[in-house]
Amino acid sequence: MIRHAMPLALALSAVLTVLPPPAAALDVDEIGSFHVGGRQVSLSGMPKREVVFTPGAPPITVDPNGDFEVEQMYVQYVRLSNPTAKYPLLLWHGGGLTGVTWETTPDGRPGWQMFFLKQGHSVFVSDAVERGRATWARYPEIFKTEPMFRTKKEAWELFRIGPADSYASRGVLPGQQFPTAAFDQFIKQSTPRWTSTDAATQAAYDALVQKVCPCVVLVHSQGGNFGFTAALNAVDKVKAVVAIEPSGAPDPARVDVARLKSVPHLFVWGDYLDQVPVWQKLMAAPQKYQMALAGAGASAEWLELAKHGIRGNSHMLMMDKNSDQVAGLIQAWLARQGLMR
Amino acid sequence: MIRHAMPLALALSAVLTVLPPPAAALDVDEIGSFHVGGRQVSLSGMPKREVVFTPGAPPITVDPNGDFEVEQMYVQYVRLSNPTAKYPLLLWHGGGLTGVTWETTPDGRPGWQMFFLKQGHSVFVSDAVERGRATWARYPEIFKTEPMFRTKKEAWELFRIGPADSYASRGVLPGQQFPTAAFDQFIKQSTPRWTSTDAATQAAYDALVQKVCPCVVLVHSQGGNFGFTAALNAVDKVKAVVAIEPSGAPDPARVDVARLKSVPHLFVWGDYLDQVPVWQKLMAAPQKYQMALAGAGASAEWLELAKHGIRGNSHMLMMDKNSDQVAGLIQAWLARQGLMR
Repeated sequence: MIRHAMPLALALSAVLTVLPPPAAALDVDEIGSFHVGGRQVSLSGMPKREVVFTPGAPPITVDPNGDFEVEQMYVQYVRLSNPTAKYPLLLWHGGGLTGVTWETTPDGRPGWQMFFLKQGHSVFVSDAVERGRATWARYPEIFKTEPMFRTKKEAWELFRIGPADSYASRGVLPGQQFPTAAFDQFIKQSTPRWTSTDAATQAAYDALVQKVCPCVVLVHSQGGNFGFTAALNAVDKVKAVVAIEPSGAPDPARVDVARLKSVPHLFVWGDYLDQVPVWQKLMAAPQKYQMALAGAGASAEWLELAKHGIRGNSHMLMMDKNSDQVAGLIQAWLARQGLMR
Repeated sequence: MIRHAMPLALALSAVLTVLPPPAAALDVDEIGSFHVGGRQVSLSGMPKREVVFTPGAPPITVDPNGDFEVEQMYVQYVRLSNPTAKYPLLLWHGGGLTGVTWETTPDGRPGWQMFFLKQGHSVFVSDAVERGRATWARYPEIFKTEPMFRTKKEAWELFRIGPADSYASRGVLPGQQFPTAAFDQFIKQSTPRWTSTDAATQAAYDALVQKVCPCVVLVHSQGGNFGFTAALNAVDKVKAVVAIEPSGAPDPARVDVARLKSVPHLFVWGDYLDQVPVWQKLMAAPQKYQMALAGAGASAEWLELAKHGIRGNSHMLMMDKNSDQVAGLIQAWLARQGLMR
């Protein structure tokens, strides 16, 4: 329990350089969690059942009818005692995944949650509506569609680990940075998703922003749309948006991007985008959105890593072997936006 | 990022007293997570579908057939830089719930994860197979039964917040310690459960013990059976079992409890046990197990809090208003077993 004072030289260098050496340990004020958003739903008319819940325990009559809480999201925070970032950093995951995206990488290295904590950010990691600890609701009674389960093949190819039809042979794109030996470990994070819950998910994210921001929002993939929209819905609360391979974006003809003039946006892309055709399609909406932001006078940087000599990144950049390097570029960008103390 | 040295007097008192004052902040070496256990399952013969995953994005053809990882569990750890407990503490949740059980209480106070961290334990919080970030598998193709969804009424009455048929009026048992105003917030933690996954769940817990122990295991409700069995399966690895209202236990006629001679067990019970008849039935197996342990010469304490003047506890003791008091008794018991440095 005895904590050691940081040497003076290290403390000074943390002030004087753009990207300080990470803290050796974290001085944590509180680790905690909460659910936000959601509503009560009442079901009726379904038959009762007798169920043995624990082996050896007597059966319990279960009436499936009644009241439930649905469409909330789960948020876990690590608050530092002395953050050096001006605002907490919110990490929002992509489709078919949970907040685990940001934790330890599948091959066991510290993930971006730890990276940004060590760079002085209090970090909020969330599970969106229907995912992970947010929990999910009965379908079709409450959620209106069936859940989707992503296959290993889809993840291998859609996430640009290997090219089309490479899964069976575990073929990889040349120079691949994803830790392919830990692919099965990564897939254990996969979770079912619905395609009918976007409005509830956005509402919960918006409620989260109202509860804990001002903040910086860092999103991945499916989280892109939710993060861009959350910023549009709370321009005073969201101080910057970092979008890691956003799979969609609002149509600038339907939203007022000029409202985001003082909210810098950074778009980060990995490698092989022209080798997996679906990504050319998926990039179109984010690119249009970035150009509209820039046209409206907002700071909107478009960073294709491979064009700057950083090659081999899959869709899961925060798990790739060079994940710290990519996070370091984001950290430097955040510092350039004046978001560090 | 600058950490402050603990005053000498405080450091000394931490050594000299049974229950030291909690640390003001945590000196955290690493926060991380992993999945453990599970297996690959391959599905075939189901039709393809076209799905739009992100609004504005093009539809993607989804082939539901393929390989999946199933029956893994999720584990998140907070490792202290200088733990004062000899072994990490594993917190295993009950039925229809996840590791969120141990985090911030529904009314916003620090939960047992923080309590035991501040008492010097590195803490591992897990989501069992099928729950939370462990994720779940397609049924009936992989999981063989349908999921169960707990109603608010069942939780209100089974968890001894109110007596039978009190939910509609939100009637409470006299002296109730559960933070009833935050009941809906608590229910947002509820998650579907299956009754056909016990063997997979036990296998994953056993794999967890092999991966991270020696350790102390603290279980709640449905977690009781899993924890007792995990100790039987790894008597060299599990250094103590704390069972909070276990809803079941192995039949001592079928297991060799004498193997647990050097593994102390503590059974902790809340109030109102005679006022909710199902609990008289649910307590029978744990009581038989505790008596068998004691008969075999093991340390096996049976602590009904209400018989010692601590009244008003629901089934969710770790969320009750006196949760720190109950945790303090457990901490003192752990210290008496020689499990603190």
